[in-house]
Amino acid sequence: MASRVLVLNGPNLNMLGTRQPEIYGRETLAEIEALCREKARALGAELDFRQSNHEGVLIDWIHKARGTQDAVVINPAGLTHTSLSLMDALIACELPVIELHLSNPHRREPFRHDSYVSRVAAGTICGFGSHGYTLAIEAAVRLTERG
Amino acid sequence: MASRVLVLNGPNLNMLGTRQPEIYGRETLAEIEALCREKARALGAELDFRQSNHEGVLIDWIHKARGTQDAVVINPAGLTHTSLSLMDALIACELPVIELHLSNPHRREPFRHDSYVSRVAAGTICGFGSHGYTLAIEAAVRLTERG
Amino acid sequence: MASRVLVLNGPNLNMLGTRQPEIYGRETLAEIEALCREKARALGAELDFRQSNHEGVLIDWIHKARGTQDAVVINPAGLTHTSLSLMDALIACELPVIELHLSNPHRREPFRHDSYVSRVAAGTICGFGSHGYTLAIEAAVRLTERG
Amino acid sequence: MASRVLVLNGPNLNMLGTRQPEIYGRETLAEIEALCREKARALGAELDFRQSNHEGVLIDWIHKARGTQDAVVINPAGLTHTSLSLMDALIACELPVIELHLSNPHRREPFRHDSYVSRVAAGTICGFGSHGYTLAIEAAVRLTERG
Amino acid sequence: MASRVLVLNGPNLNMLGTRQPEIYGRETLAEIEALCREKARALGAELDFRQSNHEGVLIDWIHKARGTQDAVVINPAGLTHTSLSLMDALIACELPVIELHLSNPHRREPFRHDSYVSRVAAGTICGFGSHGYTLAIEAAVRLTERG
Amino acid sequence: MASRVLVLNGPNLNMLGTRQPEIYGRETLAEIEALCREKARALGAELDFRQSNHEGVLIDWIHKARGTQDAVVINPAGLTHTSLSLMDALIACELPVIELHLSNPHRREPFRHDSYVSRVAAGTICGFGSHGYTLAIEAAVRLTERG
Amino acid sequence: MASRVLVLNGPNLNMLGTRQPEIYGRETLAEIEALCREKARALGAELDFRQSNHEGVLIDWIHKARGTQDAVVINPAGLTHTSLSLMDALIACELPVIELHLSNPHRREPFRHDSYVSRVAAGTICGFGSHGYTLAIEAAVRLTERG
Amino acid sequence: MASRVLVLNGPNLNMLGTRQPEIYGRETLAEIEALCREKARALGAELDFRQSNHEGVLIDWIHKARGTQDAVVINPAGLTHTSLSLMDALIACELPVIELHLSNPHRREPFRHDSYVSRVAAGTICGFGSHGYTLAIEAAVRLTERG
Amino acid sequence: MASRVLVLNGPNLNMLGTRQPEIYGRETLAEIEALCREKARALGAELDFRQSNHEGVLIDWIHKARGTQDAVVINPAGLTHTSLSLMDALIACELPVIELHLSNPHRREPFRHDSYVSRVAAGTICGFGSHGYTLAIEAAVRLTERG
Amino acid sequence: MASRVLVLNGPNLNMLGTRQPEIYGRETLAEIEALCREKARALGAELDFRQSNHEGVLIDWIHKARGTQDAVVINPAGLTHTSLSLMDALIACELPVIELHLSNPHRREPFRHDSYVSRVAAGTICGFGSHGYTLAIEAAVRLTERG
Amino acid sequence: MASRVLVLNGPNLNMLGTRQPEIYGRETLAEIEALCREKARALGAELDFRQSNHEGVLIDWIHKARGTQDAVVINPAGLTHTSLSLMDALIACELPVIELHLSNPHRREPFRHDSYVSRVAAGTICGFGSHGYTLAIEAAVRLTERG
Amino acid sequence: MASRVLVLNGPNLNMLGTRQPEIYGRETLAEIEALCREKARALGAELDFRQSNHEGVLIDWIHKARGTQDAVVINPAGLTHTSLSLMDALIACELPVIELHLSNPHRREPFRHDSYVSRVAAGTICGFGSHGYTLAIEAAVRLTERG
Repeated sequence: MASRVLVLNGPNLNMLGTRQPEIYGRETLAEIEALCREKARALGAELDFRQSNHEGVLIDWIHKARGTQDAVVINPAGLTHTSLSLMDALIACELPVIELHLSNPHRREPFRHDSYVSRVAAGTICGFGSHGYTLAIEAAVRLTERG
Repeated sequence: MASRVLVLNGPNLNMLGTRQPEIYGRETLAEIEALCREKARALGAELDFRQSNHEGVLIDWIHKARGTQDAVVINPAGLTHTSLSLMDALIACELPVIELHLSNPHRREPFRHDSYVSRVAAGTICGFGSHGYTLAIEAAVRLTERG
Repeated sequence: MASRVLVLNGPNLNMLGTRQPEIYGRETLAEIEALCREKARALGAELDFRQSNHEGVLIDWIHKARGTQDAVVINPAGLTHTSLSLMDALIACELPVIELHLSNPHRREPFRHDSYVSRVAAGTICGFGSHGYTLAIEAAVRLTERG
Repeated sequence: MASRVLVLNGPNLNMLGTRQPEIYGRETLAEIEALCREKARALGAELDFRQSNHEGVLIDWIHKARGTQDAVVINPAGLTHTSLSLMDALIACELPVIELHLSNPHRREPFRHDSYVSRVAAGTICGFGSHGYTLAIEAAVRLTERG
Repeated sequence: MASRVLVLNGPNLNMLGTRQPEIYGRETLAEIEALCREKARALGAELDFRQSNHEGVLIDWIHKARGTQDAVVINPAGLTHTSLSLMDALIACELPVIELHLSNPHRREPFRHDSYVSRVAAGTICGFGSHGYTLAIEAAVRLTERG
Repeated sequence: MASRVLVLNGPNLNMLGTRQPEIYGRETLAEIEALCREKARALGAELDFRQSNHEGVLIDWIHKARGTQDAVVINPAGLTHTSLSLMDALIACELPVIELHLSNPHRREPFRHDSYVSRVAAGTICGFGSHGYTLAIEAAVRLTERG
Repeated sequence: MASRVLVLNGPNLNMLGTRQPEIYGRETLAEIEALCREKARALGAELDFRQSNHEGVLIDWIHKARGTQDAVVINPAGLTHTSLSLMDALIACELPVIELHLSNPHRREPFRHDSYVSRVAAGTICGFGSHGYTLAIEAAVRLTERG
Repeated sequence: MASRVLVLNGPNLNMLGTRQPEIYGRETLAEIEALCREKARALGAELDFRQSNHEGVLIDWIHKARGTQDAVVINPAGLTHTSLSLMDALIACELPVIELHLSNPHRREPFRHDSYVSRVAAGTICGFGSHGYTLAIEAAVRLTERG
Repeated sequence: MASRVLVLNGPNLNMLGTRQPEIYGRETLAEIEALCREKARALGAELDFRQSNHEGVLIDWIHKARGTQDAVVINPAGLTHTSLSLMDALIACELPVIELHLSNPHRREPFRHDSYVSRVAAGTICGFGSHGYTLAIEAAVRLTERG
Repeated sequence: MASRVLVLNGPNLNMLGTRQPEIYGRETLAEIEALCREKARALGAELDFRQSNHEGVLIDWIHKARGTQDAVVINPAGLTHTSLSLMDALIACELPVIELHLSNPHRREPFRHDSYVSRVAAGTICGFGSHGYTLAIEAAVRLTERG
Repeated sequence: MASRVLVLNGPNLNMLGTRQPEIYGRETLAEIEALCREKARALGAELDFRQSNHEGVLIDWIHKARGTQDAVVINPAGLTHTSLSLMDALIACELPVIELHLSNPHRREPFRHDSYVSRVAAGTICGFGSHGYTLAIEAAVRLTERG
Repeated sequence: MASRVLVLNGPNLNMLGTRQPEIYGRETLAEIEALCREKARALGAELDFRQSNHEGVLIDWIHKARGTQDAVVINPAGLTHTSLSLMDALIACELPVIELHLSNPHRREPFRHDSYVSRVAAGTICGFGSHGYTLAIEAAVRLTERG
């Protein structure tokens, strides 16, 4: 049966392509979504790809994933380091979680070194730009097959 | 005159009953609401019971409580430790605040030991599961009588 | 069968009523004991109510509670934040422990924010003055019924 | 050409005038908006003045300011010290940012001393009450002329 | 009656124009003094503008301001973060104090983030280069009118 | 009327004269008591001089001083840095407190630099060996005359 | 032209399969090497796969990779958090570095949260067990194509 | 001549055998005392074996050991980490001190990692359960022979 | 032979009497000097009493005291906590130093709790207002007699 | 069956006897090995005694101990506080570990207070010089008998 | 052309020879100046050698060095660790700076471990007593030749 | 008699000339060795110049220097900040140690600010590139002549 993967994007990721391209690259979120769809198709997985600047909306989506998705890939952006509520939501959905970052947060400011999401993620992929999304989807499908 | 008590529930509490029952118990939020209604009735108090995953919505509700409620009982969940804005809203509403937790945060991870809400709450009740809600309502009514 | 509740009061609580009434209220410890007795009677519980300024005496009492009491309600006062031995005694007695404070320590000096007792207490009640004692006894009886 | 200045107000600022007037003054946000409009008129600038209690809404507004405004004046209130996402949004809009506080946060609690917004702001004005808004608008217009 | 404003400049500000112009701008202190005089004239205020590299001299001047000036605008430069004595002098003069920095210290090294002067200043203006001096004088005059 | 001064000595001070004489001097506690009695006689004060190794006993004595003594001189020894309960007792007795140390704790290990007693003492005298006791009694009598 | 990828394994990884399988899995390092060879073949890449318990040997190997390899995938094991020299060697080889961990170090002890290698790695993959090796090799090849 | 060894046991050790046997083992303090007596007999040493929950009583005993005992073996339990007064008493008795713990405190909570007693002990033995008492007595006798 | 005592007063103490009288009292420095002269006369000591707002001037005076004075009483004011150079000068003069504060710095802000001068002072007297000067002179004379 | 005990000595212990004898004693490592052999013979145990200055060599030896030895006694010397890899190797060998130090590290510099090895050792013996080796071998044999 | 080297000496260095000779050596500053003159002559360099106890005077001298000297050798003494203004002056003079200490500050008290001057110095020489001055002058001349 | 100087170079210094030349310069280690040989010849000293990437090898060499060399000049590279064992070896060899760095570590990342080697070095020279080696050899010869 096809794995169902929810890919969530946190605050400011709708600005990709124009925002600090030296850090985040020049691809837009739409282009990244296309990459993801292609990868999902190749792996025979179903994809739900979303973005919001609202912590509450992301939490609502994570709650709904429980029982309707098989894994969550999340690029939590700035919420990575500040949102205990997001972490609690990820625990509550009881799905394997893959944390994803375009850049390598450990090479940036110290307040980007601690991650609430890392505490509950099965695994983390960071620093590979848009290519990291396809690695994460592959990892999600693999984890789902096992579980 | 009847005391009017607003009971607020923060992010992820809509998942009660299914989420980490070994920590939070097996009762759903609807069952807890029923317990609260029963307690309020016994004490002759009016009850307004709400939940949201959105910090902004909780702040809006707290603002509206000013002048329309007599006390706020709040289980701030993950916002307890991260939301200065929620704390500022609780100060702004100028009502006695009772902080409530189902579990005892001091027995959990260190980042759950510091509470912004504790800094402005009249008092705190934690660790008694759903029974804590009825203790909190009783305390709220008592504080309101005094005030 | 009636629940047996030991209520322990730590250093300086014998001075209640005269000591910093703006923080601790104007009731004496004798008046609080009367409130507790009344509450215990209403709940059909047995009450043992004690105070000491000596850490060692409190530890001796806690040891003796093992097997002769059903729950411990403790207002550890200044020992809350400094006595690892008191914490170890509370673990050793293997009874449910309810931590109690008249005021809300989180609104006071930083050295009153960390509690050894919280690490082992089933739950905590603080900030409700003498009324907190009756809430704590009610919580103790409720916990005992379950256990 | 007229400078276009977006003035953003964060959580709880809708309560101005009634909330802790000894700290924030007795003027309402509507009165402050009137002051700002008058100042903008005097300087020949266009003004967009907004408030929200929702972090996500503020981030959406900041994104839209990119290319439609010339500068952002922001009183981030409680989000000043907790919202990495707001800081990232301010970077992403690529406009000069002026941080504004009614009171002087350095004379208040320690958790109000660190500001994420200061890390990306061109400049900061704090402690002058509502008068600070007019200073900030003047500074914004001046920065815009230069840029 | 005309407001009397003392503008004090701390160590190394005599080097302005040549010292790290990418941080402090290309204007000399004499040019900034001229800007200030113009602004004071426009506001009908009296101006006393001084600079010293000696902490003791600055303290002497602040003492003398008591009763002879109405407000102090101070750019304490490197003493901002190290001189408790300067802070004590500012308290002792019992005048409203406006702290001023050419650059935004929060975007620089961590040891420039804590300010003794902020603890006693009515307000702070930073990051607007020489234009900040005129904003500060305007704020000083406004505070003086009120007081 | 004669000032009544209680001089309290904490743990291990009964060992004076033999214990680490290079730090604490060669006088015994009995010899120091004699010095104190002589000084009190010269000043027309009444003296109550005591020592205990038991925190609880010291707290009991401090409680009894309330209303029967005019000032407390205390050399809290090792309890200086660890006993919040002793500090609370000193507050509760509502008498002026003079903290006394034979040696200068700031020249010793870091864990002797922080003092709970300093937070509530009117004043502190340290580093003058046994002579400090007579300075402290003089200061106590002087404070009592004023009060 | 085929990408040349050096895969380095740090101290104790020769014990894989027997050492704490609940953390590191049941596959031996030889089995993981086989997985890697298969992946490299599929991607048309050349693979050099090594392990040592000696920091100095790993540094020697990294130096030799300069000019003879196109990318380094490294699972630094315990050296991740303690070896500044390893980090300096990775900088000196001037190749893209991919940091790899079988488990998610952020879910383990705090002294495993800080990584010297993360400071210089292009990206990091952790938490996916042996599957992470194939993801890392894919990422290495992809990075090499770009560079 | 026979070595005289004082073995002291701190708070809660009278509960051994029933208290957290997974940490402290199943032997009672009486059984441990018997082991110690047997070991002392074998080594031709005199043994004084005591326990108290009162810090003050332990300090009194240590003072009396001066000149009447040759070494002190102490299991300070919870006082290890909190009692500066106990440490000062151990210095004052001028005997070699051997610190003893049943469990290995470094594998437990962080607040059990720092020991005041370690600062003055000749040596420490921990983690060997009741067997550690006999090792400590052997070490004490050996130290006494040397000294 | 008469003891020669140098009394030094640091920055801002020339403002005594008008500056924050609730903390520092209502006496002027001239009145305190008179008290000191009277005390010195009674003890047969020679007094040199000085004040400066300049760290460098205080250091020059301390250097000159070497060989011409017998003891230094110093109220270092704000330099207490910031001037390593003052501490080094006090060491260099090789005279007994008595540190003096009008108020008790430990009851004030945390940055007034650490004292460089305490590290080199023979003893400290604080919290007794102007009376502390006479206690300090008495202690200085006593120390000089001994030395 | 005879217990097999591996005794490992870390960096610089080959210098014993000449290196800082006031801390480490005057016995050479060869003399200590002789003491150990004698003790092992008395207990009927087999002894393997080794030293290396190379972390990697120590790790190799620990790996080989798995299945060929029954316990490891290790004096990790300077690696105690810095080598996470050594700790991981000790976990990987799945043998009981006894940590040993000639001196008491807690009486030395702060960077010798934290031990990675303590986190995985069954027990620790320190401060008894060469005699500690024989205590450790006795403890190792005893632990082996139990296991 | 001859290199022009300014050698600055901070507070208390005028006391050299008499002040703590076990730390700073027995040579006077005049003798050190003679050594420096000899070295400068040998290298064909011009030397300006100065000392002041006043931070402000040192800053004035550094400002004047701009354009009239080629390098600054500075022994900042106690200002090393406390004077941000001195550091800013050294930046402002835009000359290569060589930091010099007679003793090795890292072997002394912790508050001598952090140096503001090190942050802007080209290099540092410490621990070689008066010989360090000649090494520093040689380094200064060498740096000047390159620049 | 000729001074014998051992010059040791730690990990990665074999890569000099190619590795980060903007930090470490463009000279190779062979060229630096030539400079050192020339300097040693000029001073009539014997030189032993070595490099290793292995901590254990460096320790072995330091042990052998005892009695065969007169001084150690060491550029410990990355081991400066992490190797307690190297520090212990330098103590054990009982020779004067001169710490050397090509760059100024205090202008680099915070984890390069603390040096174990500084704690035992007679002196330190840093920031002068390859020229620092000749200064260090001169200092070593000078120290040896004295000793």
